Amino acid sequence: MESYPSPVMPTISLSLGEHSYNVHVENEILQQSGDLISQCGVKGNIALITNTTLYTETDYAAIVLDSLREAGYNTTLITIPDGESTKSLKQVEDICDRLTKAGIDRQGTLIALGGGVIGDLVGFVASIHYRGIPFIQIPTTIVSQVDSSVGGKTAVNLPSGKNLVGAFHHPRLVIADPLTLSSLPPRIFTEGFAEIVKHAIIQDVDMLDLLEKLAPELKQGFTPKVRELLPELIARNVAIKARIVEKDEKETLGLRALLNFGHTIGHGIEAALPYGEVLHGEGVSLGSRAALYLSEKHAGLPAQDARRVLSLMRELGLPLTMPPGIRQETVLEKLMTDKKFESGQIRFVLASKLGNAYVDKSITIDNIREAISDLYKNTD
Amino acid sequence: MESYPSPVMPTISLSLGEHSYNVHVENEILQQSGDLISQCGVKGNIALITNTTLYTETDYAAIVLDSLREAGYNTTLITIPDGESTKSLKQVEDICDRLTKAGIDRQGTLIALGGGVIGDLVGFVASIHYRGIPFIQIPTTIVSQVDSSVGGKTAVNLPSGKNLVGAFHHPRLVIADPLTLSSLPPRIFTEGFAEIVKHAIIQDVDMLDLLEKLAPELKQGFTPKVRELLPELIARNVAIKARIVEKDEKETLGLRALLNFGHTIGHGIEAALPYGEVLHGEGVSLGSRAALYLSEKHAGLPAQDARRVLSLMRELGLPLTMPPGIRQETVLEKLMTDKKFESGQIRFVLASKLGNAYVDKSITIDNIREAISDLYKNTD
Repeated sequence: MESYPSPVMPTISLSLGEHSYNVHVENEILQQSGDLISQCGVKGNIALITNTTLYTETDYAAIVLDSLREAGYNTTLITIPDGESTKSLKQVEDICDRLTKAGIDRQGTLIALGGGVIGDLVGFVASIHYRGIPFIQIPTTIVSQVDSSVGGKTAVNLPSGKNLVGAFHHPRLVIADPLTLSSLPPRIFTEGFAEIVKHAIIQDVDMLDLLEKLAPELKQGFTPKVRELLPELIARNVAIKARIVEKDEKETLGLRALLNFGHTIGHGIEAALPYGEVLHGEGVSLGSRAALYLSEKHAGLPAQDARRVLSLMRELGLPLTMPPGIRQETVLEKLMTDKKFESGQIRFVLASKLGNAYVDKSITIDNIREAISDLYKNTD
Repeated sequence: MESYPSPVMPTISLSLGEHSYNVHVENEILQQSGDLISQCGVKGNIALITNTTLYTETDYAAIVLDSLREAGYNTTLITIPDGESTKSLKQVEDICDRLTKAGIDRQGTLIALGGGVIGDLVGFVASIHYRGIPFIQIPTTIVSQVDSSVGGKTAVNLPSGKNLVGAFHHPRLVIADPLTLSSLPPRIFTEGFAEIVKHAIIQDVDMLDLLEKLAPELKQGFTPKVRELLPELIARNVAIKARIVEKDEKETLGLRALLNFGHTIGHGIEAALPYGEVLHGEGVSLGSRAALYLSEKHAGLPAQDARRVLSLMRELGLPLTMPPGIRQETVLEKLMTDKKFESGQIRFVLASKLGNAYVDKSITIDNIREAISDLYKNTD
């Protein structure tokens, strides 16, 4: 397999004025956490927050804590239960209380070690603890490395919906070690590629070639080749996200909204079963199929382009047909309460061609219903 | 009684870049709420949040709602229980959930109608609902009109301490109607003067003359003279707070810390009994006596100046001796967990002369203990 055509540096800088920060992507960079954190000026006590988990984050916690101690930091470890249900204000209160008792005050810094749930939750805690303290993201899943750890969106859930309260609070630093992906359960590893395919669809058509070459290799597991190529793939995706976030930091210009490709219907599907039964990336995969369907019908996306992407997604192991037990009307109800449906107006992200997405305002509820219906059929 | 020497406009502007806003201070301005809110560009639905209260905020709510409807707004009224215990993350979750169900989304605006508790709580809700929406302060107590509604600090309490989580989130507009003060119970009316005296001590010695003239009049209740003079007094105090906030928006330069004069020991006393038994202003009154004691001992404040202020405070009806049932060691314990004691360093605000305060780092725990002891003695 050949190398990527336009290699990216393992460090991606986000230029956001006083909120600027770096994302480091490198195998075994976890061991350098202490030095990297020290280099970006963090002083005071550090609390590392992670979950009591299935997939060895606790080992990663030990590596990071060792590295922090070697760099001279006082550290506190806080573990919380796994799962989307921990993204609640009740959990926020519990964490803040434990931080206060552990002496993590206005001078303290937090580290979020884990997947998207930990990143969203800890980032939100950091945004409100003592009216805001710095935090560092150490994402350990593909979804969190290429998407949720970068961009400063933090959130927790309300009983009435997902991610309805939160803050824009940028991390001081992101440390992404692709080797942490080797210990992910296959399903969690695979779902991450939904966000990568999304980036290719909206912004980087060349990445489809690479993914098509990588897909057969991935089926053989975490081979030396995969291990060699993942850092570059992750970094390339971080760069895509970074450039969009720089141009539209607070999602006010419509550009950042492009990252929602596949997410409108995806969130509806994710919410149609209890949280965790459909993974975020799986919802995005199904939502992307639906968005490709609508793009073909309403945005002029050539049929063969849509087929090409679906074929790649299938090859990557991403789900393309509706899981059993989900009713079309439930998905519709759930997506109507999503916060992207504010004030009743539908803003749906379509692709007019691969690598070129835009926010469309002409898509109707009936169009969406039809696209969801189509998900019950097999792909060719 | 003569008029104030340097009259201030009834509208105070805070110049804070994109977060700039106006504070309107005027009798019967509540009736103009709808127009004022419309003039500052608020669109979309509005939720008015207030408490089910002792002192007729519900009547004020009706006035504001009428005015909003006349200005063409869709409105929702949300009432919550009274008291400091409502400043919790549990209450925040409940309010956000009710807002979502009432259709208050990213396009919505909140109004906080009430005292400091409502302002702190609703401001915090506004800072995190849909990652931040605009809000408007309509303060109805002296403490909230001259202090907490201006400056963008929002917060709720944790089990482990007061105001430990929050955000800097400036209101879009503040509407302060001094006539709302006429319905306050005497004790709530009186406590507010602790913050006004504080402003005089740290920044505006001339205001002491005025307060000395006003004090005898105040004893006769809400006379026409009081009604005439209050708007100017409130506006003058808003202006003091506004100028400090403009120079040190996020409390990073030490200037805004001057507003904590009397608050370190004051918070310790407030926290020594269940919330609400010692009112915030009463704590500040006692804390100010202690801070004057320390200023005399360690900052060269002339004894007659301290006596002059204490005499004024007594005349205004502010408490100067420790209420029964509070142990000195409890106050010390409570103030040590206050967030102003971060990282163990004591930063205590002293006045070297009236109108001139600074942050002192030489005050020890023993000094503080001695000042608290002194509060058990009567003043001359």
